[in-house]
Amino acid sequence: MNTEQQFISALAEIFPKPSELLVGIGDDAAVVTQLKQNLVAAADMAVEDVHFKRNWSSNFQIGAKIATANIADIFAMGAEPKYLLVSVALPKDTKIDDVKELALGIKSVSDRFATQVIGGDISSSEKLVVSISALGQVSEPILRSGAKTGDKVFITGLPGWSALGLSILENSVPNSTNSNQSGPILAHLNPYLVSPAKLFSYLNSLTDISDGLVADISNIARSSNVEIVLQSSLISALPGFNEFSELAKLYGQVGLDLILNGGEDHLFVGTISESNYERLKKEKVSESVFVIGHVMEKTSDQINPSGVKLDEKVLKSLGFKHF
Amino acid sequence: MNTEQQFISALAEIFPKPSELLVGIGDDAAVVTQLKQNLVAAADMAVEDVHFKRNWSSNFQIGAKIATANIADIFAMGAEPKYLLVSVALPKDTKIDDVKELALGIKSVSDRFATQVIGGDISSSEKLVVSISALGQVSEPILRSGAKTGDKVFITGLPGWSALGLSILENSVPNSTNSNQSGPILAHLNPYLVSPAKLFSYLNSLTDISDGLVADISNIARSSNVEIVLQSSLISALPGFNEFSELAKLYGQVGLDLILNGGEDHLFVGTISESNYERLKKEKVSESVFVIGHVMEKTSDQINPSGVKLDEKVLKSLGFKHF
Repeated sequence: MNTEQQFISALAEIFPKPSELLVGIGDDAAVVTQLKQNLVAAADMAVEDVHFKRNWSSNFQIGAKIATANIADIFAMGAEPKYLLVSVALPKDTKIDDVKELALGIKSVSDRFATQVIGGDISSSEKLVVSISALGQVSEPILRSGAKTGDKVFITGLPGWSALGLSILENSVPNSTNSNQSGPILAHLNPYLVSPAKLFSYLNSLTDISDGLVADISNIARSSNVEIVLQSSLISALPGFNEFSELAKLYGQVGLDLILNGGEDHLFVGTISESNYERLKKEKVSESVFVIGHVMEKTSDQINPSGVKLDEKVLKSLGFKHF
Repeated sequence: MNTEQQFISALAEIFPKPSELLVGIGDDAAVVTQLKQNLVAAADMAVEDVHFKRNWSSNFQIGAKIATANIADIFAMGAEPKYLLVSVALPKDTKIDDVKELALGIKSVSDRFATQVIGGDISSSEKLVVSISALGQVSEPILRSGAKTGDKVFITGLPGWSALGLSILENSVPNSTNSNQSGPILAHLNPYLVSPAKLFSYLNSLTDISDGLVADISNIARSSNVEIVLQSSLISALPGFNEFSELAKLYGQVGLDLILNGGEDHLFVGTISESNYERLKKEKVSESVFVIGHVMEKTSDQINPSGVKLDEKVLKSLGFKHF
């Protein structure tokens, strides 16, 4: 119990009491002032040797990555992230400094999005487990089911870097002096999240890339009852495509496979009407909105179960496998 | 991924969409209508072989117990529980029916308190991990720091049953035909939570018994800067005290030790002014409010570090050790 209290004190220091917090760490639950909009809630759990390996990731990176995944889920609803609840199960050999590193990793992400850790739980376990719940608020959520025939499909960057990083970690002897490796490995261990908030008012549908581009776009296609056609020429035009493909080849991978099916990039993908796209470009809202396809009327589930095509070819939703 | 989707479908069936849910399971996050009061949030994680053993507990009991602990934390703030987020990490051999049992266990508790599961996460793990976040609302929270000199200390029942159950499970060959065992064992594996909501308007401070009576009362004493004196004569007068003490003796335990230091009963303990106590009795608000002591002015931390005495004797806050 003393160790638990030491941990909690260390965390209370790292996460100072936000102004809207009425009751913070140290009572039975946290209390914050009433939200001004609808409540948005998501949960994500990461387990050692399933979602991360401690000899690949620092505690800082583990904390940052799971916070990123949670906050990305709130953004993917068109919502504003506000609070995190962080539960950790720590192996017996965990030191206070390890927990501080984990907490600083979480804070490195939550600080960038004005999101506050308001509570959680600490217990013990053989393997490290980090379970975060993210709370946010939204007036009108942007759903996966909002895609409309005629919409353009956009993405906020080139996906696949995280999957390439994982493949390098799995198959090569990581070599920190090899600058070719550090980009994708870092993309896997600590993906850099960019808020899509300024796009919200323009969009018809939205999700984040957690399971892989095709899998996540398939979620949009199926819940919107539409077909989504990706264009290989537009994907090849994404920034960094050539460099990425060459690097993938160097490590025995096919770049396009990683782009289509690699998970955990936490980029955003969704659909936008043509007129809103024109407006967004005219108003110079963001330079990181790239059209990669368009939304068509749904064909039958038998012909296209995933609802996603690349040019003329029906794609399978392979999803992302952890290790 | 297919298994994950099967699990999620099974859960979506068990937890139907509550009316205030704008977006449920199947998008990036859940969205519910704006809360009418301040937001209350707590998290609790339970790890196999740390918090429970699968050869002692059914999946139903595991689900019910962790839901109980979470909802008790919301009640312990004087708040109304509203929503749960449930994350589980499942061992590879987990069957759909195991997950359904776990979900039905959670539902058996959440239904009793009109609390809804609105989201969560499923992943894999060597050991079963269940991590729940509970959300609720409150206008004026009841804090641990609200105890005042002159208050009476109350409890909502006799604690210690859960600790006795654990001790029987650890030290004896459990025997289901021995009716002496089933009460305490059930109290440990599936503690029965009773809402303290009708008491709220009368109370100065409140917490639930999760770590043990002395440990939890010590939290109140220390955050309120008071000393709490428990009276052994009042504890002996709690309903079931004699039966409990005899049963404890039968299993080689000292009843009073279990009552003072046994955790996880999820009874409620707190303080109430004398006048409110008289009013509560006169208005017949509850028969399950038992006075076990009173609040005194604080003595020094050196003389009484826990802030809790039993009659004249300073008590140590031993807390509750998992296994």
